[in-house]
Amino acid sequence: MSVTQISPLEALSQVLAEDMGRVNALIRERMASENAPRIPEVTAHLIEAGGKRIRPMMTLAAAQLCGYRGDAHVKLAATVEFIHTATLLHDDVVDESAQRRGRPTANLLWDNKSSVLVGDYLFARAFQLMVEPGNLRALGILSNAAAVIAEGEVLQLTAAQNIATSEDTYMTVIRGKTAALFSAATQVGPVVAGAPEAQVQALFDYGDALGICFQIVDDFLDYGGAGDGLGKNLGDDFRERKLTLPVIRAIAAANAEERAFWERTIGRGEQRDADLAQAMALMARHGTLASTRQTALDWAARARRALDPLPDHPLKAMLADLADFVVERVN
Amino acid sequence: MSVTQISPLEALSQVLAEDMGRVNALIRERMASENAPRIPEVTAHLIEAGGKRIRPMMTLAAAQLCGYRGDAHVKLAATVEFIHTATLLHDDVVDESAQRRGRPTANLLWDNKSSVLVGDYLFARAFQLMVEPGNLRALGILSNAAAVIAEGEVLQLTAAQNIATSEDTYMTVIRGKTAALFSAATQVGPVVAGAPEAQVQALFDYGDALGICFQIVDDFLDYGGAGDGLGKNLGDDFRERKLTLPVIRAIAAANAEERAFWERTIGRGEQRDADLAQAMALMARHGTLASTRQTALDWAARARRALDPLPDHPLKAMLADLADFVVERVN
Repeated sequence: MSVTQISPLEALSQVLAEDMGRVNALIRERMASENAPRIPEVTAHLIEAGGKRIRPMMTLAAAQLCGYRGDAHVKLAATVEFIHTATLLHDDVVDESAQRRGRPTANLLWDNKSSVLVGDYLFARAFQLMVEPGNLRALGILSNAAAVIAEGEVLQLTAAQNIATSEDTYMTVIRGKTAALFSAATQVGPVVAGAPEAQVQALFDYGDALGICFQIVDDFLDYGGAGDGLGKNLGDDFRERKLTLPVIRAIAAANAEERAFWERTIGRGEQRDADLAQAMALMARHGTLASTRQTALDWAARARRALDPLPDHPLKAMLADLADFVVERVN
Repeated sequence: MSVTQISPLEALSQVLAEDMGRVNALIRERMASENAPRIPEVTAHLIEAGGKRIRPMMTLAAAQLCGYRGDAHVKLAATVEFIHTATLLHDDVVDESAQRRGRPTANLLWDNKSSVLVGDYLFARAFQLMVEPGNLRALGILSNAAAVIAEGEVLQLTAAQNIATSEDTYMTVIRGKTAALFSAATQVGPVVAGAPEAQVQALFDYGDALGICFQIVDDFLDYGGAGDGLGKNLGDDFRERKLTLPVIRAIAAANAEERAFWERTIGRGEQRDADLAQAMALMARHGTLASTRQTALDWAARARRALDPLPDHPLKAMLADLADFVVERVN
C-alpha cells in the first residue's frame, strides 16, 4: 500500500498536470460542433461532470514512463477519453440509466436519440484525433479496442438474465467492456515512444490487469459498497439482471431452492422488495463477496507485477500504487 | 439519359462484379464475432436484405477509373458499407422505424440496445478495416465523414419539429447525413490510386452532388412516390415531423392559415387523419414537389458535370448515367 499522504490518483494528476491541461483543452476544442449545438451541450454535461480522467492519464503516464517527448500522446489520450465518453452515452441508453456521476443522465435530460447520435459523433471525433499523429500501430490498437469494447457490451447484453453464464463469459465481457480501453490506453504510450517490445507488452499487461481489477471492484461495490456518492445505487446490477462475479459464484454454489430464487429474480426478472436483501444473504452464505474481493486483489497484484520489466521511474511507482488504490475501495 | 437496356446501376454492378465479390466476402468475414453471436445475426439481417451496395461501388468505380491496381479499394469499399450499415442501425433506433428494406427493423426484431451496440461494433470494424491499407489521407477522409454524418443526424434531430428550419439548414443536414459518405466513398478512390488533385476534387464533387441528389429524391418520394416496394411509406417524414425540402418550401410560401396548419402538424405534432392529404394539397398549391424535383435534376446535372476533368473511361460514362438514373425515380 502507498504510504504517501495523497492518493496515487492525485499523485498522478499532479505529475501529469501539464499534459492533462493540454488533453483537456483538446477535448474542449474537439467536442465543439459548428453546426449542431446539441452536441457540445450533451458532451459538456458528461465531460464536465468531473470524471477522474483515469484512462487518458494512463496514456500520458505510459508514454512519459517510456521517455516519450512529443505531442502524439496528448492526442491519443484525448482519443481514449472520447471513446470512453461515447461508450458511457450509449451505455446509459442500453442500461436505461437515470444517473451517472451523481447527475441525471443525458438520455434523461435530452433523449435516447441525442445520446445515440452524440455518442456516434464522439466516436468519430476519436477516430479523427487518433489519425492525426499518423502512427499506424497506435491506430490499429485503438480501433481494435473499440471493436472489442462493443463486442463485450453485446455479449453482456445477451448474457444478462441467463443464470448459466460462466466465469469465463464474465471475464470475456469485462475484458471487452472495461479492460480493452485500459490496455489500449497504456499500450499506445510505449508504441508512440518507440519503446522496446518488452515494455509495450508490460504496459499492455498492466492496463489489462488494472482494467479487470477496476471492473471487478465495481461489480463488488454494487453489492458490497456503502454508496460511493457517484450516483450508483446498491443493487443496480441485480435489478438490471446482470450476471456479475459475486452472483455467478453464488449461483454456482446454490442448492435447489437457491437456484430457484436466482432463476426467478435474475432469469425471469420477477423481483419483489425483499429480494435484494435475500440475494445479498445468499452471497454472504457462500462467501462470494469475499472471494470476489480476493479475485480483485489478485488482479491488482498482477497489474503491479506486470510493471517489472519497466525502467525505474517515479511514474512506475505511482502506477503500481494505483493498482492497490483501485482495489482499496473494497476494504 | 442512358440508352442502354439495363440500368446504370446494373451496368456498374456487372463491370465491378469481381471487386464487389471481394468486398462482399470481406464484409461477411468481418461482420463475424467470435464472442457475441448476436452481432452477426443482427448484421446479417440488414446486410443480406439486399441493399444496392451503391456506396462501396462508388469507391471501387472511382479507384478503377483512376487506374488503381491493388487491394486497398476493396477494404475501403467494405469500410464504407460498414459505416453505412452502422448508421442505418442507429437511424432506425432514432426514427423508431419498424421497416427497412421491406423487412422489420433490427430494433423491432431484437431491441434498441442490440441496434445501438451492434452499430457501434460495425463502426469499430469499419475503422479497423480502414486502418489496414495504411493510407493516412484516406483515413482522414473517412473519419472526417463519420463525424460529419453524426453531426448531420444531430442537426436533423434538433431541426425536426421546427418550422423555422431554412433551406440552408436542410442542405447542411443532407450533406452530413447522406452526401458526406458518398463524397468520402468516391474521394478515397483517387486518393489510394495516387491520382492528380484535380481528379480527387472531381470525384469528391461528383459524390457530393450525387449524395445530395439522392437525398432530395428520397425526400421527394416520401410525398411524391407511389410506394417503391422498399418498405418506406408515403408520409413517413410528415409523421416524424421532419423538415424536408418540399415542406420547407411550402412553409416559406404559406399564408397565415397554412402556417397555422404547419405549426400544428409539424411544430406541435398534433396530426389527424386528413392532415397528410392536406399537406400534399398545400405542396401542390405552391408547386413545391415540382420545384424539389427540379432541384434534384440540377444536382444530377452538377454530378455529371463534376466528372469532366476525369479521363475517358467506360466507368466515367456509367457514373454520369447513374446521376440521371438516381433522379429518374422522381419521374
